Amino acid sequence: MQVPRQCFRHRYPETDFYAEKNRDKVRNDTYKSAIEHHADKISNKVVLDLGCGTGILSVLCAKAGARKVYAVDAGTDIASQAANIVEANDLSHVIVVLSGRFEDVKIDENVDVIVSEWMGQMLLGEEMLLRVITARDRWLKPGGVILPSSGTLFMAPFTNSKRYLEQIEFWQDVAVIDMSAMIPFAEQNAFDLPNVDRIKDENLLADAQVVKHINCYSITKPELMSIEESFSMKTLKPGVVNGFAFWFDVEFTGLRQEEEQLSALDRMDSALVLCTGPSVPPTHWEQTLIYFPATIQLERGKAFTGSVTLTQPTEHKWLMDIRLMYRSNCGCVACSKQTELFSPF
Amino acid sequence: MQVPRQCFRHRYPETDFYAEKNRDKVRNDTYKSAIEHHADKISNKVVLDLGCGTGILSVLCAKAGARKVYAVDAGTDIASQAANIVEANDLSHVIVVLSGRFEDVKIDENVDVIVSEWMGQMLLGEEMLLRVITARDRWLKPGGVILPSSGTLFMAPFTNSKRYLEQIEFWQDVAVIDMSAMIPFAEQNAFDLPNVDRIKDENLLADAQVVKHINCYSITKPELMSIEESFSMKTLKPGVVNGFAFWFDVEFTGLRQEEEQLSALDRMDSALVLCTGPSVPPTHWEQTLIYFPATIQLERGKAFTGSVTLTQPTEHKWLMDIRLMYRSNCGCVACSKQTELFSPF
Repeated sequence: MQVPRQCFRHRYPETDFYAEKNRDKVRNDTYKSAIEHHADKISNKVVLDLGCGTGILSVLCAKAGARKVYAVDAGTDIASQAANIVEANDLSHVIVVLSGRFEDVKIDENVDVIVSEWMGQMLLGEEMLLRVITARDRWLKPGGVILPSSGTLFMAPFTNSKRYLEQIEFWQDVAVIDMSAMIPFAEQNAFDLPNVDRIKDENLLADAQVVKHINCYSITKPELMSIEESFSMKTLKPGVVNGFAFWFDVEFTGLRQEEEQLSALDRMDSALVLCTGPSVPPTHWEQTLIYFPATIQLERGKAFTGSVTLTQPTEHKWLMDIRLMYRSNCGCVACSKQTELFSPF
Repeated sequence: MQVPRQCFRHRYPETDFYAEKNRDKVRNDTYKSAIEHHADKISNKVVLDLGCGTGILSVLCAKAGARKVYAVDAGTDIASQAANIVEANDLSHVIVVLSGRFEDVKIDENVDVIVSEWMGQMLLGEEMLLRVITARDRWLKPGGVILPSSGTLFMAPFTNSKRYLEQIEFWQDVAVIDMSAMIPFAEQNAFDLPNVDRIKDENLLADAQVVKHINCYSITKPELMSIEESFSMKTLKPGVVNGFAFWFDVEFTGLRQEEEQLSALDRMDSALVLCTGPSVPPTHWEQTLIYFPATIQLERGKAFTGSVTLTQPTEHKWLMDIRLMYRSNCGCVACSKQTELFSPF
């Protein structure tokens, strides 16, 4: 569905953010299934819902039998809406909505379960995971459960020439005037920042590679502040590479140990993995596309190597720096791209 | 075509603004036809292109034989792109690109023609017309030509329940939870500001009414600062009114006198009128929809009366205040809505 533009687009209403999430059936249904699946770990327990938004996860946990749910959100407007929803669902005796930064709110007991929908673009956008880690270290009881329990960021080279041309090509002829002099400026502006857009499996030119696997029980802040991963891919088919696509999965195993998790994943109901890649039904996260300054022509079966570095600059906590280095053995020299991901909240 | 979102939407790249305009074939073709139609008034003359952007209108005027074109834009980046385009089209001997606010640029002669694409949402958004008036009073020779020569803002009550429900209704059931407590907040946020969206002729429940007709030769700043118009419409068919739709036409008659203009319009090639209403091919302006706080059920043939007031507050020059008062004789009491239009530049 096309969302109508507000006048003008940079006045981004807060409800659009929540409406977009709450209309995302894949997101909602996966969280619902996961919470119901783990009802034995939630029933009669104390739950913390971090960044609760409208309170949907708190209500799901209350319905799964939680004894108490602390629903925390820094947005005072949305927290007051969450309180309305809790009341309308007759759950005020279970769910306590706390409005404020979670560092400031007062929770006088430790919790058995932390549930949160913290994932931003490229998994780590919006920095909510850093807050989940802090909350985990502060409030989670030994043996407590975190949902989702782990997450994985993927990347793969993509081709999307059609979109590229749509954004750029029309400058060749505007009202029978050659305006192609605009093209370098347009390319820089349209594709300088990461694009949130939907691609298909057939747009990928190589198998996806894991950039980072995160175990929510054991990941530390320093590990998240700077992630560097090298990659080496073999192209599956020839094509023009426009850039790298990034997407993520999160898994609701409930399990603490990486080994347990990985083996559990094989046995797991796929409904308990929230996937946002190009080969599964679309979510509101779509995919994050980082276009190269210049396209690369790849042959089939050739190696495509490089590295990706994701850094959260401490001086500007809403940004994530992204550095890509890449080289193919088709004869092209090493190339690089540096950009940044900006979080709205 | 769906434009991919940048990460995130409030980082609105400058080129998107120009790309959207330059991809708008109706806009481009109408300006092209109008400039070619008035070639006799442009040939060997001096032209001012105010807010030139990429310089497309300057190039069209140069091709129509202008002796000199001053292309002025306050955006230094886009002005430098315009200079590139002028050079690439071998027109540097005709077109002088001046970067800066037009109040500050130095033009040492009066001009025969002012051409400008100044229209924003609801015709008057972006406030460019105020600048055209200032430039007219400062530089236009007696007997000079302004293109477009006049403009008309229209309004009509519209029904668009489907879109309304899409934006709101899903809160009734999110993952089998009743979240309808969100609806008042969602309604307020999603429809508080004017929406830029496309409707169809069949969405209109009454004939369009003129809010304001503007003669670009004679309109004054005080007339634009506060516009108040009462309306009285008879509904053509029964329906639920969701709000008022606004759109505009601009006419390229070239004529100075209102009487000449109006009679000329009857005789005019329709290609010389740029229409942005719901019954003609779409433009990038689409329509501006102002939703009511509560819908009104109207019967066929009933009167629908009220007033619309558009004010440009002097203390915040990027805003336009919009006040609507409306009443139907179907038994409902008088209602009102106040909102504002915000300009990005």
